Amino acid sequence: MTAPPHDARQGTSGAPLPDTQQGMRRRNLSRVMHAVAAHGPLSRAAVATRIGLTRAAVSTLVDELIRSGLLNELGPERPGNKVGRPGSALAVSGSGPVGIGAEVGVDHLSVCAVDLRGEVRARAVRQGDNRGRAPEPVLEELGALLRQVSDEARRAGLRPAGLAIAVPGLVARGTGTVVRAPNLDWQDVDFGALLPGGLPLTVDNEANFGALAELWLGDGVPHDFLHVSAEIGIGAALVVDGRLLRGTRGFAGELGHVPVWPDGPACPCGGRGCLEQYAGEEAVLRAARLDPGADRVGLLAERAEQGDEDVRRALRDAGAALGIALTGAVNLLDPRSVVLGGALSRLAPWLLPSLEGELRRRTAGTTCAVTVSGLGSEGPLLGAAHSVVRAVLDDPAGAAA
Amino acid sequence: MTAPPHDARQGTSGAPLPDTQQGMRRRNLSRVMHAVAAHGPLSRAAVATRIGLTRAAVSTLVDELIRSGLLNELGPERPGNKVGRPGSALAVSGSGPVGIGAEVGVDHLSVCAVDLRGEVRARAVRQGDNRGRAPEPVLEELGALLRQVSDEARRAGLRPAGLAIAVPGLVARGTGTVVRAPNLDWQDVDFGALLPGGLPLTVDNEANFGALAELWLGDGVPHDFLHVSAEIGIGAALVVDGRLLRGTRGFAGELGHVPVWPDGPACPCGGRGCLEQYAGEEAVLRAARLDPGADRVGLLAERAEQGDEDVRRALRDAGAALGIALTGAVNLLDPRSVVLGGALSRLAPWLLPSLEGELRRRTAGTTCAVTVSGLGSEGPLLGAAHSVVRAVLDDPAGAAA
Repeated sequence: MTAPPHDARQGTSGAPLPDTQQGMRRRNLSRVMHAVAAHGPLSRAAVATRIGLTRAAVSTLVDELIRSGLLNELGPERPGNKVGRPGSALAVSGSGPVGIGAEVGVDHLSVCAVDLRGEVRARAVRQGDNRGRAPEPVLEELGALLRQVSDEARRAGLRPAGLAIAVPGLVARGTGTVVRAPNLDWQDVDFGALLPGGLPLTVDNEANFGALAELWLGDGVPHDFLHVSAEIGIGAALVVDGRLLRGTRGFAGELGHVPVWPDGPACPCGGRGCLEQYAGEEAVLRAARLDPGADRVGLLAERAEQGDEDVRRALRDAGAALGIALTGAVNLLDPRSVVLGGALSRLAPWLLPSLEGELRRRTAGTTCAVTVSGLGSEGPLLGAAHSVVRAVLDDPAGAAA
Repeated sequence: MTAPPHDARQGTSGAPLPDTQQGMRRRNLSRVMHAVAAHGPLSRAAVATRIGLTRAAVSTLVDELIRSGLLNELGPERPGNKVGRPGSALAVSGSGPVGIGAEVGVDHLSVCAVDLRGEVRARAVRQGDNRGRAPEPVLEELGALLRQVSDEARRAGLRPAGLAIAVPGLVARGTGTVVRAPNLDWQDVDFGALLPGGLPLTVDNEANFGALAELWLGDGVPHDFLHVSAEIGIGAALVVDGRLLRGTRGFAGELGHVPVWPDGPACPCGGRGCLEQYAGEEAVLRAARLDPGADRVGLLAERAEQGDEDVRRALRDAGAALGIALTGAVNLLDPRSVVLGGALSRLAPWLLPSLEGELRRRTAGTTCAVTVSGLGSEGPLLGAAHSVVRAVLDDPAGAAA
């Protein structure tokens, strides 16, 4: 459901797949939807100017989108203007398809419905530790939340168009199977088989959805950035030219297992001295001599705010390890910026000085800005729901079918 | 001249640029050229089947390509076949445009001309140390080699269609300016201003062209791999879905400056303990207690073959450092394989055991094959020339104009 890293897939001969009139029509319908979604309300003439097609061609496309219930006509655009025929303003419909997003977190389950205008129309959350629980009861609870949100959306006249689920683990590319979620202790869990069917399903890593949320909803975020997020593990996602780099198997972005001190402590992944051994939640709590409680990040932020020197030092050291691992990532990937999201965004004030110090010192002459996400821990859930919405905008003809 | 990382560029509104009939025709001309280049000789009917267009549409496109001198008609495809009208086999022309590739190496300059069939039609090399020399005399010498190769190509009835130059340094994306070439000691050198004009010019990092050569010419190389190469420095290039990941500024792939031992020796880049401090040529020569001579890699390979324990240990340690840095890269990028190219391919027998050992140990549960390039140090030069050839195949209408 999320866009593949390259839309213009190449055939096995190396040549792009053939263009057809039908394909061109579908792509042009998408251009109209994206233009109105990003800049609406817009008149037909304004849409035509934006996407470089004739007014006549745009009118035909718009009529089809109105018939499918994806666009609405708001009436004359400039009521005060008496000269010429006023253009009728078009807006994306608030009563058509909605994207259902969900997150299976280590300590919560959450679901929301987002309409084509990007508004959250329904929402449900259940707090509770999921570590060590079997997948079946967890996904049964998630199923109940999904029904609740879908029913609420339907009562508001909306139609769920797809379901996307963010998980803290590795998902095999193009499947609904979580290969490994170390912090839930899950392996090879087929979400498609365990959840009620009916909707197109996408399952993806929470760092990926967090990065997409940043791309689509973040304020002034460039189209090339490395998004770093953390719950218990540390994940990253690289956005290049507005697209996720997923890796061959879908496992790219494992920043948490980049070696920082190669002879450091053993890591469950089999390596030694991985970033997670220095900057993962458990490692930071251990270094700060705190017991892991329910709200670990909240506890760290609170103590750091109160000036607890152990906590501040632990976060400073974690920031330095992050800076070393990110030095490697910046050298390899040359992103425009690094965005700290998820739990890390709450701890940024104490991580950033040492993180930026290491990065600056070790990459002299280069400049890679480090910023903090404004979406915080909401990112992955919103990214999931919006990925369904984007799929509708990307192929309105398919969505209306 | 090399393809941008994503052909389907997005407009600023987030919507793809509009399709036009004219654009469709140009893309279909390219599909015909790619099909014949990859699988020819082919009849018109076979081309039509391969690219999914009608026979009539393909005939029109083929006629245009024959008129432009890019395709040749070889005569009846199956002379023995008496039933029905025999298809006339089409082949890519060996007398049309050629791509001129060049390499500015630390110890050599080389130029070659490659025709649309991929054959090297002319070649010139000048051995000699370029370290510490000013850009002007070096590029003047390169200009002489370029004239020599172009003249030879023209005498054979060929037409140079473009020039691509591989350099051991960072090139600002989309420009002809070498921002930094530490091993030549060059900074901000504008190749366009220092070379005779006349041909479209591309300048790119040697690791990038090496990776493209591997992609286009390598035997059974997948479309997703990390190509690692070395001259004096260590560079890498990531190919994703058959396209180079260049980074925001064009500086991606700086594997040589990934921290391996963060408190290790200072590196000229400003960092500490970078991979180049352990596995760069100078570091290995130092560790092996050898004086840097003219053919450093040759010297190392020779001594290692003779069983010199100092050299073997130095290469083993370099392999281990490479393995640690590549662990980070594999975790971040999830490539299908790692390909050792350039000078590294000659030293592979002594680097590989420790390199693969570290990688396997530190990425338990994942599998990333390490292979050795068959192109060796020819990769960057061939990649450069072929990038011009690919640009002709990608837009035959533009090339014929």
